[in-house]
Amino acid sequence: MTRYALTLEWDGTPYMGFQRQAHGPSVQQAVEEAAASVVGHAVTLHAAGRTDTGVHARAMRAHFDSDKALPPFRLSEALNARLRLAGHVVAVLDCVEVGEDWHARFSCTGREYEYVIINRRAPLTLEAARAWRVARPLDEAAMHAAAQALVGKHDFTTFRSVHCQAASPVKTLDRLDVRREGDRVLIGAAARSFLHHQVRSMVGCLALVGRGEWPVGRVAEALAAKDRGKLGLNAPPEGLYFIRATYPGE
Amino acid sequence: MTRYALTLEWDGTPYMGFQRQAHGPSVQQAVEEAAASVVGHAVTLHAAGRTDTGVHARAMRAHFDSDKALPPFRLSEALNARLRLAGHVVAVLDCVEVGEDWHARFSCTGREYEYVIINRRAPLTLEAARAWRVARPLDEAAMHAAAQALVGKHDFTTFRSVHCQAASPVKTLDRLDVRREGDRVLIGAAARSFLHHQVRSMVGCLALVGRGEWPVGRVAEALAAKDRGKLGLNAPPEGLYFIRATYPGE
Repeated sequence: MTRYALTLEWDGTPYMGFQRQAHGPSVQQAVEEAAASVVGHAVTLHAAGRTDTGVHARAMRAHFDSDKALPPFRLSEALNARLRLAGHVVAVLDCVEVGEDWHARFSCTGREYEYVIINRRAPLTLEAARAWRVARPLDEAAMHAAAQALVGKHDFTTFRSVHCQAASPVKTLDRLDVRREGDRVLIGAAARSFLHHQVRSMVGCLALVGRGEWPVGRVAEALAAKDRGKLGLNAPPEGLYFIRATYPGE
Repeated sequence: MTRYALTLEWDGTPYMGFQRQAHGPSVQQAVEEAAASVVGHAVTLHAAGRTDTGVHARAMRAHFDSDKALPPFRLSEALNARLRLAGHVVAVLDCVEVGEDWHARFSCTGREYEYVIINRRAPLTLEAARAWRVARPLDEAAMHAAAQALVGKHDFTTFRSVHCQAASPVKTLDRLDVRREGDRVLIGAAARSFLHHQVRSMVGCLALVGRGEWPVGRVAEALAAKDRGKLGLNAPPEGLYFIRATYPGE
């Protein structure tokens, strides 16, 4: 048995997220079908994180096991060829053999997302479905200041989807920073793990601060309330990118 | 009569370039139709430069004249609404009134393009139709060195499309630089004006240098030959972006 670890990039637009769904296409199904056709038997793909419909990945880490021993480079080339042939917008950026104690989800000790806002009046063309357009001017310094109240170990109930399956709403947010590059406002978030919708919910509230609709302190109040009803806004999925998963010894 | 100057962004994928074509959609037609429906009469749009099928624009400058005096902000909002409604991927980033002596094409004193290569093995997903993927490793320092032979006033016949309508093949290239940002290799080109296919032809030859197929000096030899048959490769349109037009007094 060989365990292959993949680094995946995808355009989230046509997928119902990473996880297999009965009612629509998923990244998991796309890669599992490509892998099955290469190795000649059904495989199960495990990823560092789930993602929602429309959410992108720059470098998701995943793995599957196979009876077939193939040079990893040949495997990644074959997977990419099959994914393209099937019309998928998923690419294998890297493929390596790992030990059986390495698990894409359970060994992962850190996850990072980036959220891309384009802060301008005009509709998006080149970045359509790649960013959230916010027309009103955003004060990124106020957003960054408000974000710092969320960093640390907290009960994130306010920023959690009603569909979240995590055992506890308590998470430790390692980093939440906001910076501007021209008309782009970029929000980086890092944690060991996140609740369902947590990043989009945090970004939505920061955008309200940026537009001047919420005072900076209201984000801390919303957190303290531990009440989903206090959430201001859930940012749309198309601005969200899973950008990094970290593992011990890397 | 009022002259309106527009700054346009577009995704070049669905268009046969800027200029109106009998056999397919163009950016000119898209904007002229939107403008006609706003001002109530036919208009003619003039742009700083033509672009080929599939070539993108970040900030093309253009103008049209109208009998109707509208606040420029209202005009740009109306144009964007109509462009979206018609399913176009063209956006008006800015709209101002200019004097009748200002001409998007004839007043323009500088044009800049950026060419985006993604230098990696895996197919593109998020950047599909937004960049040229080059699988073999590129030596960007060799590319930059080779590019410097093209800077200055030269007969660019080698780098000119057979369909080029310019009166003379002699142009002055002000800047051609190559830099790497991670797996992206970015080529910037600036001149008062360019020949048809000039940027893509120069980029194609630089890519041959970057892949080690051409020695650095061969670009200078190709230029000196003044022979289209000495062109190594024309880079594909999807990596090319018109990024800036400059005007006196700006």
